Amino acid sequence: MLSPTPRSTIGRKGHRARTEREALEEVLDAGLICHLALIVDGSPIVLPTGYGRDRDTLYLHGSSGARSLRAASGAAVCVAVTVVDGVVYARSTNNHSMNYRSAVIHGTATPATDKEHGLRMITNHLAPGSWEHARQPNRRELAATSVLALDLTEASVKMRGGPPGDDADDIAAGTAWAGVLPLRQVWGEPEPAPDLPAGIPVPEHVLRHGVP
Amino acid sequence: MLSPTPRSTIGRKGHRARTEREALEEVLDAGLICHLALIVDGSPIVLPTGYGRDRDTLYLHGSSGARSLRAASGAAVCVAVTVVDGVVYARSTNNHSMNYRSAVIHGTATPATDKEHGLRMITNHLAPGSWEHARQPNRRELAATSVLALDLTEASVKMRGGPPGDDADDIAAGTAWAGVLPLRQVWGEPEPAPDLPAGIPVPEHVLRHGVP
Repeated sequence: MLSPTPRSTIGRKGHRARTEREALEEVLDAGLICHLALIVDGSPIVLPTGYGRDRDTLYLHGSSGARSLRAASGAAVCVAVTVVDGVVYARSTNNHSMNYRSAVIHGTATPATDKEHGLRMITNHLAPGSWEHARQPNRRELAATSVLALDLTEASVKMRGGPPGDDADDIAAGTAWAGVLPLRQVWGEPEPAPDLPAGIPVPEHVLRHGVP
Repeated sequence: MLSPTPRSTIGRKGHRARTEREALEEVLDAGLICHLALIVDGSPIVLPTGYGRDRDTLYLHGSSGARSLRAASGAAVCVAVTVVDGVVYARSTNNHSMNYRSAVIHGTATPATDKEHGLRMITNHLAPGSWEHARQPNRRELAATSVLALDLTEASVKMRGGPPGDDADDIAAGTAWAGVLPLRQVWGEPEPAPDLPAGIPVPEHVLRHGVP
C-alpha cells in the first residue's frame, strides 16, 4: 500500500483513486516519459524527461550542467507519469472526459548513490535491452551526467476507464452520440541510421519494445 | 516570434530550440493533454489536464472546488505539452535519446473573461466538434467550472527529429545497432456507450478526430 499524505491524497473525484502498489507500478511501466516539476528562482518549472524505476526508487537523469537538474538535486519535486487511453464523448460537453492512467509522485530528489545502476534503469525503461547491447557510459560520460533518485513512498494513482457518465436527462433526450474513442501508442517500423552498414538486422530487443 | 526570457530560454542543447510561432502552434495542436505545474503550500505540484488554445491564449479548466485550480488562479504556473515521436537508439547508451516535440509556457494564470469561450476551445481541442454536437453547459455547470487563461507570450519550443548522433569511435567500432523506433498515437475504433440506442451511427466529427 502507498502512504498517502495530504498533498498526495486525491481531492477531487477520489473514487478514481487507487492506492495499491501494483497500480503505481502499472502506470510507471506503461509510461515512456514523465513530467518533472520543481521550483526554480521561486517559479514553478515543468519539463518532460525520461525515467527508470527499480523497486521503490524512481531515477531521473540529465546533464550535470543542466540548470533544472542542478536545481532538482536535494529539492522538493513532483513527478507525473500519464498515459492517455482515450477520449470520452458524453451527451453533454460537461461530462466529456478522458480515459487515462496517471501517477503523481512527491518527494525530495537526491543524487543517486549508484549512478550507473540508475542509468541502467533509465536506459532500459526507454529502450529495453539497450544497456546490454550498446556501449555503456565511460568515466567521462558518467561524470557529465547527473542521476537523481526519488523515493516512491508518497505517490497517488488515478485511473479512468469505461464509457461516459451522463446525466439521466441527457440520456433521455437522446440528441448526442456517446462513447469512447480509444487512443493507443503504436511503434512503427524501425528506421536504421543512415550511417549503419547495410545488412545489419534490427536486433530482437528493438523489435520487441513494448511487446509483453 | 516568441519572446524568450531567461527562464524560457533553452539552456542545454539550445540548437534544438525553435522560436517561431508556428512551431509553438504545431506542438499545441499536436498534443492532447498538458502538464500544469504550480506551487501549492511551498511545494511544486504537477498534474495532467486538458487544454485549448485560441490565438495567443491557452485555456485550462477544472472544477471550481479543485484545490489545484484554486491555487493556480492568479499564480505563476508552467505548462508543458509534449509529443513523443520515437526512441533514438544510438551505439552508446549515452547518446540514446528521444524524438519529440515539446512546448513549455510560463506565465500567470488568470480567470478567463469569457468562460464559455474557453470551454469551447478546451472541448473542441479534446474532442473536435463536440461543442456543437453535444449539449452545451448550463448555468449550474458553468458556475461549477473554473476556466483559466494563460498568455502564450513566454514560451519555448524544443524538437528533436532524425537519426542518432553517435561518436565517431562508436560508429567505427560497429558493434551496436543504431536507428529510430518511431512512436505514433493511433485512434482505435469508436466504442459506443452501452446505453446508446442501437442503430445510431458514429458521427463524422468523432470518426475524423485527428484526421488532417
